[in-house]
Amino acid sequence: MINVAILGYGTVGAGVYRVLNMNRETIARRTGEEIYVKYVLDLREFPGDPTQEVLTHDYNDILSDPEVKIVVETMGGLRPAYMFTKQALEAGKSVCTSNKELVAEHGLELRDVAKANNVNYLFEASCGGGIPIIHALDNALTADEIDAMTGILNGTTNYILTQMAVENEDFAEALKGAQKNGYAELHPEADIEGWDACRKIAILSSLAYGKYISYKNVYTEGITNIDTLDIAYAKALGLKIKLLAASKRTESGTWAMVAPRLVDKSNMLYHVEGVLNAVYVHGNALGDCILYGSGAGSLPTASAVAGDVISAARNHGRPLPSDWSDEVLELLPIDEVRNTFFVRFSGSEEEAEAAFSTIDAVRIPEAEGEFGFFTAELSEKEFREMADKSGKVIKAIRRA
Amino acid sequence: MINVAILGYGTVGAGVYRVLNMNRETIARRTGEEIYVKYVLDLREFPGDPTQEVLTHDYNDILSDPEVKIVVETMGGLRPAYMFTKQALEAGKSVCTSNKELVAEHGLELRDVAKANNVNYLFEASCGGGIPIIHALDNALTADEIDAMTGILNGTTNYILTQMAVENEDFAEALKGAQKNGYAELHPEADIEGWDACRKIAILSSLAYGKYISYKNVYTEGITNIDTLDIAYAKALGLKIKLLAASKRTESGTWAMVAPRLVDKSNMLYHVEGVLNAVYVHGNALGDCILYGSGAGSLPTASAVAGDVISAARNHGRPLPSDWSDEVLELLPIDEVRNTFFVRFSGSEEEAEAAFSTIDAVRIPEAEGEFGFFTAELSEKEFREMADKSGKVIKAIRRA
Repeated sequence: MINVAILGYGTVGAGVYRVLNMNRETIARRTGEEIYVKYVLDLREFPGDPTQEVLTHDYNDILSDPEVKIVVETMGGLRPAYMFTKQALEAGKSVCTSNKELVAEHGLELRDVAKANNVNYLFEASCGGGIPIIHALDNALTADEIDAMTGILNGTTNYILTQMAVENEDFAEALKGAQKNGYAELHPEADIEGWDACRKIAILSSLAYGKYISYKNVYTEGITNIDTLDIAYAKALGLKIKLLAASKRTESGTWAMVAPRLVDKSNMLYHVEGVLNAVYVHGNALGDCILYGSGAGSLPTASAVAGDVISAARNHGRPLPSDWSDEVLELLPIDEVRNTFFVRFSGSEEEAEAAFSTIDAVRIPEAEGEFGFFTAELSEKEFREMADKSGKVIKAIRRA
Repeated sequence: MINVAILGYGTVGAGVYRVLNMNRETIARRTGEEIYVKYVLDLREFPGDPTQEVLTHDYNDILSDPEVKIVVETMGGLRPAYMFTKQALEAGKSVCTSNKELVAEHGLELRDVAKANNVNYLFEASCGGGIPIIHALDNALTADEIDAMTGILNGTTNYILTQMAVENEDFAEALKGAQKNGYAELHPEADIEGWDACRKIAILSSLAYGKYISYKNVYTEGITNIDTLDIAYAKALGLKIKLLAASKRTESGTWAMVAPRLVDKSNMLYHVEGVLNAVYVHGNALGDCILYGSGAGSLPTASAVAGDVISAARNHGRPLPSDWSDEVLELLPIDEVRNTFFVRFSGSEEEAEAAFSTIDAVRIPEAEGEFGFFTAELSEKEFREMADKSGKVIKAIRRA
């Protein structure tokens, strides 16, 4: 029997408790041993809940119990999660987590601490919820040079953009609806400003490219600026706006960026709707590969955490390989990243041509006194200079 | 350094050789050791090819060389692949393969032989080419009760159906084009009759459900019967015809079936075109998950085989866990499987109503003297009896 402790009995923690019990028999068969939740740590009480019997308010109960081999960290945030995780690893306990803030901030260090203590720090649930992308990168797609990744990695923003496109809601309405349905938090900044997706693409790109990318260096735009006219232009063009978290190795260097982008139908990401997530990976042998599924939610996220618990149990005392090194991957300065831009322009077509050479104007009845067009491929700096010079650019959205 | 031998220098074998060399450095970093191809076994000579130096025509050279720790079997077919694989495993060498016939026929036994000899028999490439579905089932989605799988698992048939729908080709033209483009073999029966997809869904379902499903018990229809009128009806209905290999656990039992089906836009499999493959998996915690990518081709398949080589190297002397047991999973008799059928009918609407209760007729200009309709959900037996009684059913295609 393997004893587990769950830190934090919120949405994900409760999901992990539920999955480990609901699928107890199958999990025992696949693990080779029964998995038993010996402790749940939370500041609150849960009278009547089955966890009440195993509830503790003191982390030392867990830390000092040699029977606990695996700690599930589903508290979120950096404090006290960082300290608790480090202490558990140093005490020879593997840690499985859904905490993307912590993984993005201290994941590399914690993986090293785990290795030094012959245990595992696993975080499948930190990116893409139930989608097994981290397992794929660490264990299956290992023969490839991964050279590009693009993900819809945040369900909240994809839900909002879907509602705006399908239900013709404006951003504020769609956000309110997302909050009402439990898809957005009361303080939704981490989602709508793109910070959540930024952390995830930094983690995934680090694993894929085998070097360390700090999320702090990833250029990030959210979707708060997307309005109903942007959506209307997209529709007129047969495109959709998606918040894409992407990174790419090019001849001039590797870039990473989170931004809303116009996606066309031939791209499978176009078809990813609502709170669903997907990650596109390109490898030099593999070609195109996409993993798609529930990026959030109690049970899908818990499925990934519980899968990690099984991996940790199967590999007790044996750190699993991972290609995440200390070597820092210097990203290409954002000014040099090349994109094609859809420009909303308030001047005349002649003025647009003067600034951007030839253009092919797109006009929609909803947008008075303006029109849109696609630029050629430009560096971010070139684009900004052209836009500044013209003085008539209302807004620009990059093409996927 | 880990020494590897490749059996069979055909499309996939040559791809494995190429991937292991092309990505040598990255693979060495991820494996912790260099991987070196010491032998290539083939009956032919390859003058001028770099493998000529490591070429052998005698399997005993490989079998008796204790330095060879991993054997890549990319010969295909049962003979001599089965014997060679068994001998390698018994000699303490792990075997990585793309050979779905062999895995479907003897995979369970060979995995047991591997286990008994403390080595691995790995076959990621046998299902879905480069798509890491087997790794996902064995290692990541382990906390779930998987209760349904549906795959587009054969690129040849998906290419033919795509050509029929997009280019308005008939079956014979589309098949000829597939052969010309190297997407179909000269003897294409295994693909177009559904046998290839059948083997793959048997393997995947066995791994997912943790019991043994023989491909021989999987009801299988191919696409040779699909004509241009079927495609025209599908288009009129906003649907596509896809060859789906599916299995499902229901309250009355587990069924598995390969058949062309009508798929609607809201299903991601609708958007899988050409030679691409995809597998949908549903877990009781995970919810919906889809893995999508190149199901065939030299490099994508080689990517999966080479990924297995890395797993075998990382886990030398340590059989990896897998939930594929000897216990046979008795499938629900096909007669009892329930489906909704799209019926092409040559009688009157009254005759159709008499046989199938209410119907909602669909007429297309291309189809004279007939019309189509969907039935209610029926067991296969109920449907057959109704169809026989009416005597006017031209053809039926199941709905996804």
